Amino acid sequence: MKRTLIKDLKGLKEKEVLVKGWVYKIYELPNVTFVKLRDSSGIIQVVLEEKYCELKNEMSIQVTGSLVESKKAPGGLEILATSIKILGNTYYDILPFEINKKKISASLETILDNRAVSLRKPELRAVFKIQQEITNAFREYLMSLEFTEIHTPKIISSSTEGGSEMFTVNYFDRRAFLAQSPQFYKQMMVGAGFERVFEVAPAYRAELHNTYRHLNEYISLDVEMGFIESYEDLMELEEGFLKHLFKHINEKCEFELKLLGTQLKEIKPIPRIPLAKVHEILQQEFGKASPPGNIDAEGEVLISKWVKEKYDSDFIFLTKYPVSKRPMYAMPSPEDETLTDSFDLIYKGLEITTGGQRIHDYNMLKENIIKFGLNPEDFKFYLDTFKYGMPPHGGLAIGLERITMKILDLDNIREATLLPRDMKRLEP
Amino acid sequence: MKRTLIKDLKGLKEKEVLVKGWVYKIYELPNVTFVKLRDSSGIIQVVLEEKYCELKNEMSIQVTGSLVESKKAPGGLEILATSIKILGNTYYDILPFEINKKKISASLETILDNRAVSLRKPELRAVFKIQQEITNAFREYLMSLEFTEIHTPKIISSSTEGGSEMFTVNYFDRRAFLAQSPQFYKQMMVGAGFERVFEVAPAYRAELHNTYRHLNEYISLDVEMGFIESYEDLMELEEGFLKHLFKHINEKCEFELKLLGTQLKEIKPIPRIPLAKVHEILQQEFGKASPPGNIDAEGEVLISKWVKEKYDSDFIFLTKYPVSKRPMYAMPSPEDETLTDSFDLIYKGLEITTGGQRIHDYNMLKENIIKFGLNPEDFKFYLDTFKYGMPPHGGLAIGLERITMKILDLDNIREATLLPRDMKRLEP
Repeated sequence: MKRTLIKDLKGLKEKEVLVKGWVYKIYELPNVTFVKLRDSSGIIQVVLEEKYCELKNEMSIQVTGSLVESKKAPGGLEILATSIKILGNTYYDILPFEINKKKISASLETILDNRAVSLRKPELRAVFKIQQEITNAFREYLMSLEFTEIHTPKIISSSTEGGSEMFTVNYFDRRAFLAQSPQFYKQMMVGAGFERVFEVAPAYRAELHNTYRHLNEYISLDVEMGFIESYEDLMELEEGFLKHLFKHINEKCEFELKLLGTQLKEIKPIPRIPLAKVHEILQQEFGKASPPGNIDAEGEVLISKWVKEKYDSDFIFLTKYPVSKRPMYAMPSPEDETLTDSFDLIYKGLEITTGGQRIHDYNMLKENIIKFGLNPEDFKFYLDTFKYGMPPHGGLAIGLERITMKILDLDNIREATLLPRDMKRLEP
Repeated sequence: MKRTLIKDLKGLKEKEVLVKGWVYKIYELPNVTFVKLRDSSGIIQVVLEEKYCELKNEMSIQVTGSLVESKKAPGGLEILATSIKILGNTYYDILPFEINKKKISASLETILDNRAVSLRKPELRAVFKIQQEITNAFREYLMSLEFTEIHTPKIISSSTEGGSEMFTVNYFDRRAFLAQSPQFYKQMMVGAGFERVFEVAPAYRAELHNTYRHLNEYISLDVEMGFIESYEDLMELEEGFLKHLFKHINEKCEFELKLLGTQLKEIKPIPRIPLAKVHEILQQEFGKASPPGNIDAEGEVLISKWVKEKYDSDFIFLTKYPVSKRPMYAMPSPEDETLTDSFDLIYKGLEITTGGQRIHDYNMLKENIIKFGLNPEDFKFYLDTFKYGMPPHGGLAIGLERITMKILDLDNIREATLLPRDMKRLEP
């Protein structure tokens, strides 16, 4: 007999079924045992006429039996088992924590230490089904706009943006680095004729931060787009993606959103406000001073609060960061050379994107590298790209775990990461 | 005016158009200049009534003008330009090689050194459009079978399969490694309740090989599947994927396949032959001796030749590798404990997949680790996964660059890699 997934039992014509999964919960009564069986798709009640003393929570088993309607069973269906077979045995005295209660009673550390157990809780696993649909929506949206998905190396010979905060790799007899971003390569691929590219890949930051919003290895959703008119095109693109994303998730993740008790509201037009103006607002509305040319974590939270009240938006683009706060490849603003045509996107108080137009003229870029106190020789292969008719272009990057976290209102970015890497955590 | 991609000009109603791209070729006649303009989607002829001395090959420009039919123009269409604007200037004396001739006259090394130029040749870029569709087909196929896409860390604390041939990373004050494969993590995620998972991500091998078929960083298409009946399910899965893939590419990449002068033939049922039997065939048919329990590069080529002649198949599954040639987690064959329920897939003489059923019983796995002369303590987090009802499972991995190379009959794996990493190459 062919196995049926639990979610597909509803509406099934056959009355004899084969299901497989893990023992989620056991209730023993004198003459009957109820077992809740869990597979990747759902939970079903199984009724055993005898005692099955050998059953234990989290064993993996297969059950054959007849599918019957039952008003008492959760979901309205249950299986009267005719046979049970153990597929995978257990070797524990007690579980690290119970997963068949409403909530897991354990610290996040313990939950992460025991990922193979904690993810069995459907609510925790649902986060990653939604994460999958974020990358699906990202690809779908960009490919509909003629973007090409690329794969660029993560082992690189030199630093992209100054050099600090990179992990070093011993590459045969040389020292190499783990890429902080595919920045140079995605620009190169725009110039190499792809025009529009994106990448979904790990990025590495050797930052000495250990906070609820930092990871040392994360997935970066990178985009780069050639032949743009201005950096407004990039914000347009991201806003379009976000609208598509929310619609996509509401459609594809109905089950998961329900399980997590949430739903995504339609995205309102996202305000685009220059950083200098944001500083004024923070000062006026909250008496909050900001670091020069930047915004701190508290500022991000306050400006989100303000924009939510004023525009009913969970998002805000902060634009026109000063040259001194952006990398050497950031395009200076035509109206004020001390500023750049760049932006960050803040979502519910957290930066989830950095983006902007890039310098595309060889001479201008070379001069800017020198102006930044860097040596053009160190950027030779990157600079060479600009000798061959580089079109106006720009791009952005979205942190996958950050957007997942904020969409689901999770408290810690590690909850949106299967196996997080931070300063202290290298396992599992 | 809105820009039109060159591929969309055909059948356009508007006669006034705006196109953007790179100058591919210039023919100057006394009173008229013909410019072939190339964008990511195609090439169009532009007619200029005056001389435009400032134009140079590979400049990026925009052209407005009227679209007219022309029997002489390649593709039957040309644009009579009314205005031209330079978007991105050039800063070279001569190009590293010409890209507007039938073939690039340069060594592969030079082509790779100048990726920003060489990829402008449509034939070279087409390889990566097809590569994109390989990953699209992979995702599409697996998601239709309820697989979840996962992201697992590439910085890991210990080696997965013995320890040699791994790159080391300086992770804060510790030594870490770059993952050779997501093996342990994908198994863990099967057990953690996803049941079926896949990943598309970089994998790292510090192998001292520098051949046409080795990369030190490559993209691994990984699959792991729970609740299997036997390892035959895995070969079934891969064969199903390959059939879907070929159909998908023929549909989605018509333009690119034509450009590369190829088409994919329908996949015949793939023979599954035990390695011992393959040794016999090689001996009998070619007088070829094989290394014990394995097959060498020459053997892969010869057995492919044989299977092509006998079964008209470009693929062959070699099955039942001996225990001594497989990792400690490989499931021994029920009928012969010296063999494993494992397989390699050879495609046109090259191994593109390794797969097999894994041991899922905690005690059996622990004993096997010891039998392999390894210390179970070193695999603690992996082993712990098996305490909680691990179902029968297995998986496989496909090298993305290898399958791309073989589909397109490329000579060197580096031609199927945007920016290859090998023992000598860390740039661009």
